[in-house]
Amino acid sequence: MKINGRHYRTIWVKKDDPSVIQAIDQRFLPHELIIEDLKDVDAMAAAISEMHVRGAGLIGAAAGYGMYLAALHAPASSEEAFMSAILDAGEKLKATRPTAVNLEWAVNRTLEAIKVEKGIENKIIAARKTADAIADEDADSCRKIGEFGLSVIEEISRRKNGEPVNILTHCNAGWLAFVDYGTATAPIYAAHEKDIKVHVYVDETRPWNQGGRLTAFELGQNNVPHTIVTDNAAGHLMQRGMVDMVIVGSDRTTATGDVANKIGTYLIALAAHANGIPFYVALPSSTIDWKIRDGIREIPIEKRSENEVKYVRGRTEDGRTETALITPKDSPAANYAFDVTPSYFVTALITEKGICPATEEGITRLFWKA
Amino acid sequence: MKINGRHYRTIWVKKDDPSVIQAIDQRFLPHELIIEDLKDVDAMAAAISEMHVRGAGLIGAAAGYGMYLAALHAPASSEEAFMSAILDAGEKLKATRPTAVNLEWAVNRTLEAIKVEKGIENKIIAARKTADAIADEDADSCRKIGEFGLSVIEEISRRKNGEPVNILTHCNAGWLAFVDYGTATAPIYAAHEKDIKVHVYVDETRPWNQGGRLTAFELGQNNVPHTIVTDNAAGHLMQRGMVDMVIVGSDRTTATGDVANKIGTYLIALAAHANGIPFYVALPSSTIDWKIRDGIREIPIEKRSENEVKYVRGRTEDGRTETALITPKDSPAANYAFDVTPSYFVTALITEKGICPATEEGITRLFWKA
Repeated sequence: MKINGRHYRTIWVKKDDPSVIQAIDQRFLPHELIIEDLKDVDAMAAAISEMHVRGAGLIGAAAGYGMYLAALHAPASSEEAFMSAILDAGEKLKATRPTAVNLEWAVNRTLEAIKVEKGIENKIIAARKTADAIADEDADSCRKIGEFGLSVIEEISRRKNGEPVNILTHCNAGWLAFVDYGTATAPIYAAHEKDIKVHVYVDETRPWNQGGRLTAFELGQNNVPHTIVTDNAAGHLMQRGMVDMVIVGSDRTTATGDVANKIGTYLIALAAHANGIPFYVALPSSTIDWKIRDGIREIPIEKRSENEVKYVRGRTEDGRTETALITPKDSPAANYAFDVTPSYFVTALITEKGICPATEEGITRLFWKA
Repeated sequence: MKINGRHYRTIWVKKDDPSVIQAIDQRFLPHELIIEDLKDVDAMAAAISEMHVRGAGLIGAAAGYGMYLAALHAPASSEEAFMSAILDAGEKLKATRPTAVNLEWAVNRTLEAIKVEKGIENKIIAARKTADAIADEDADSCRKIGEFGLSVIEEISRRKNGEPVNILTHCNAGWLAFVDYGTATAPIYAAHEKDIKVHVYVDETRPWNQGGRLTAFELGQNNVPHTIVTDNAAGHLMQRGMVDMVIVGSDRTTATGDVANKIGTYLIALAAHANGIPFYVALPSSTIDWKIRDGIREIPIEKRSENEVKYVRGRTEDGRTETALITPKDSPAANYAFDVTPSYFVTALITEKGICPATEEGITRLFWKA
């Protein structure tokens, strides 16, 4: 998607220097566009855990490239030493964020690709190819999610005789959370591209403000009409008939359709259910955790630093970036990063393979019996 | 309640100068305790609309004192000129905040008291007496709410064999929102006073952060164990069994039990209902609007400046107060200040007269058939 009219992905191999991965450092958006050079797996692990890069698809791609960087720098003295370093790198990357499943998925996929090759040079080539494939497939999956999701928006638009379709989204499941297009935003971009009128209510998404900072930024850069609201407003908007549909992303989805997503998603799902508003979850199949069936019991919920709640970073009138305390210094805060929305509250899943009910049968039919 | 060990009310007549009203300017909490001198009705109206003072009970008391300040400065040339100025002052005060009913209630009550007196001097005395009475009664009502609400906490504490009762609250229905004690906090303070173990989850309450700034501040100052969480976290905490009860305040309650309160309250009520957790609303009867029966249709919802969403004020490491932009500059934001929780989701109302179901029958029985 575009920033200042120029096309970007969120992560890529540096032009003219394939030993460096470049990524947009999202901590500085929307006020500054800073491109970070990532040169080894430690830098990549830090970039993931400190959320320079974040979002289900993007951290998958970042993990793939992290494995590639590890391969570049692993000892070439023996295959054994090389593989030992690679395995350590995989563990390091997996430990950065516990909730998203893409991380584990991408690390394991790259690991397998490295393992099957003979010779260190070939292993490095395999790591690079796999990381590139993960990134390309992520972008491609998102594009397809956009096509399938478009039909949902089109139907509401027809029912409203072309009046703007009001879509509420939470967090950033936009292109900044993936390699391109995004998941929740992909159908919105596809509709906007087709001149279907849409308007997006962007939940601010405390504490890290992925909505107010990132989703608002990317929608604005791509000329999609939108309004930022506090997370608290979702129920009120729905109760007053101001929302036609909800679409959010997912950081991990069980084989039965429970959805772990940014903290607050569950509240929105409850409000949508109470007000008869369809609640869609858009996700590439890489975020499905086929091994688990009970989201509330089995998905680990990341607890992050209380400082993300207690301090806010913003831009002053005269252009300085400041970090400021917004609570009493001595009050403790708890920072749960995700919650689980039981499948019961999910109208449907929008995936790169099509749309399906958020049930074990629906998911199985779509992915395994096609 | 106490700040730095010293007892304060939120608003009072200045010692040694009864022509000045003093109030805590809550915009600067928790970082600075600033006492503002309010000398005329315009200053009071600005203090209310710009939220130097806020909260159902406190803006009622502020309106009473605003009428008193108006009486002090109204032309004494004739009773007609005097009363005309008083009526204007009343309209001005009522227009400051549309959702809370206490404002109208306090203005009308002071107006009636002024009207029935003969002679300007007596009218001024009546205004002062009424304003003092509103403030005293507010504190007294809150104290009684604390006594009635205490029984609810005690029962949960018994059931948990003395383990801490986890109470979630939203916004600030604390003593800072009233003259003293608060409504939602009054039972908590009463329990804490009686050495019943409580722990409060304090919702941050975007965009004005009444929870993270004010409720956390007053609980901390009065040594009540608490943890600040983002508004998004309420559903997750309840789903995991980490909340025993919810208690919030109300800015206007219909005769049928619908509750207008800070934006986001409705989402919490839905989550409490979905998870079988009791949801209490604590309110003095001055916040009941006896004239209306349908909260969603009849309670006007204040829409405030988008800048409250787009900018945040906080304290930097080196002690400066900074205001910073936290969204793209060009993205619009909408700022709905309240929402309506249908009575269906309210377990019970805790009032100065006792506890009753949030139904027309329950309210009528408690207030009119006692």
